[in-house]
Amino acid sequence: MTTQLLLLSSSNVHGYGFLEQPGEDIHRFFAGRRRIAFVPFALADHAGYTQTVADRFRAIDPTFDVQQIDDLKDAEGIFIGGGNTFRLLKTLYERNLLQKIRDAVRNGVPYMGSSAGTVISAPTMRTTNDMPIVEPPSLDSFGFVDFQINCHYLDPDPGGTHKGETREERILQFHEENATPVVGIREGTLLRVEDGSATLLGIANARVFRRGREAVEVAPGTVLDAYL
Amino acid sequence: MTTQLLLLSSSNVHGYGFLEQPGEDIHRFFAGRRRIAFVPFALADHAGYTQTVADRFRAIDPTFDVQQIDDLKDAEGIFIGGGNTFRLLKTLYERNLLQKIRDAVRNGVPYMGSSAGTVISAPTMRTTNDMPIVEPPSLDSFGFVDFQINCHYLDPDPGGTHKGETREERILQFHEENATPVVGIREGTLLRVEDGSATLLGIANARVFRRGREAVEVAPGTVLDAYL
Repeated sequence: MTTQLLLLSSSNVHGYGFLEQPGEDIHRFFAGRRRIAFVPFALADHAGYTQTVADRFRAIDPTFDVQQIDDLKDAEGIFIGGGNTFRLLKTLYERNLLQKIRDAVRNGVPYMGSSAGTVISAPTMRTTNDMPIVEPPSLDSFGFVDFQINCHYLDPDPGGTHKGETREERILQFHEENATPVVGIREGTLLRVEDGSATLLGIANARVFRRGREAVEVAPGTVLDAYL
Repeated sequence: MTTQLLLLSSSNVHGYGFLEQPGEDIHRFFAGRRRIAFVPFALADHAGYTQTVADRFRAIDPTFDVQQIDDLKDAEGIFIGGGNTFRLLKTLYERNLLQKIRDAVRNGVPYMGSSAGTVISAPTMRTTNDMPIVEPPSLDSFGFVDFQINCHYLDPDPGGTHKGETREERILQFHEENATPVVGIREGTLLRVEDGSATLLGIANARVFRRGREAVEVAPGTVLDAYL
């Protein structure tokens, strides 16, 4: 079976409600699937988070039945939501879910991620923006794609006075220590991965970083493979 | 001996040169000390970083002699500079310097940190803003103070359209998982710690976060103890 991924930069986009902007893409991605296993571990309130997602999915398609992940036996789709990536990955390790989800997705169960859930679809979570509030046993993650992903990608503020590193500077530091390409996806964009090929969707460009080369802007509709 | 700390939020402050804004505080802190051991491991270019710092220190006081840290035998002061906190802490563990520096500082050698170097003066580096580009064996750090520090503290942009977590939201997530108070120090501020007591210096307020309570703003000149 082929791995099917829908990887959102964020669940919230300026001017839209929760998971509203990518609603059509979600509808199409999970079409014909009913039972969606939701992973709420990136936030502290698992029940509340699951309820919010279940309500939103029902609004997208009344046949979608979202439940918090238990075992994966009946899951026809998986969605891992955003929040804190360190907390998310630590909990997946603790509950022995990392390998189970990996196996299911490699066997063809469609996987949707948003923000933290997108970051961990990469080989490691080393390109997260989050604060390391807890310590997972490792930063190694699913490896469904062979590039790293930076969500909520942010351009420098030309009038800014803040002296902390820009997002691009942080990714350059990543490439001082790692060779894997990084795709920065701005809010309002998502990656559709099918047959090992990633296409950018949504309402903004992505920015692709390869070690030792100039970063490249790619437009929605672009197949990223040639840039990686 | 008493632990002597000077903990800068950042080396760069809008409108000032590198380490210019806290120049007088640095001068006073290391007065009468000559050999300053510098830790450049948060950046990739150790020699270049050490040179920049040595030049700036000589401009503050021509008697200051800054050298990259080797053994600590002759060090009369220690400065750990900013960059990536994960890379910094990993290198300190690898070179077996964490305990050596801790012992020296607890024996009275004055310790100055900036940004990453300030973050690791706390019990852990779990309140860094940096990207986890490498994996230290642990996020436990010096523990010279008994609160956590968030450097480059940033207020939410009231007109902002970006949907990533604000700094305050990230610290609230930290307190979902940890009980230690967090002091957010804005660029242009520093903490002077003496006899176990921390005083805010500089040109902006700090913001103190305790689990389950409203965050509190404190002004320069304030002794933080009562707020922690």
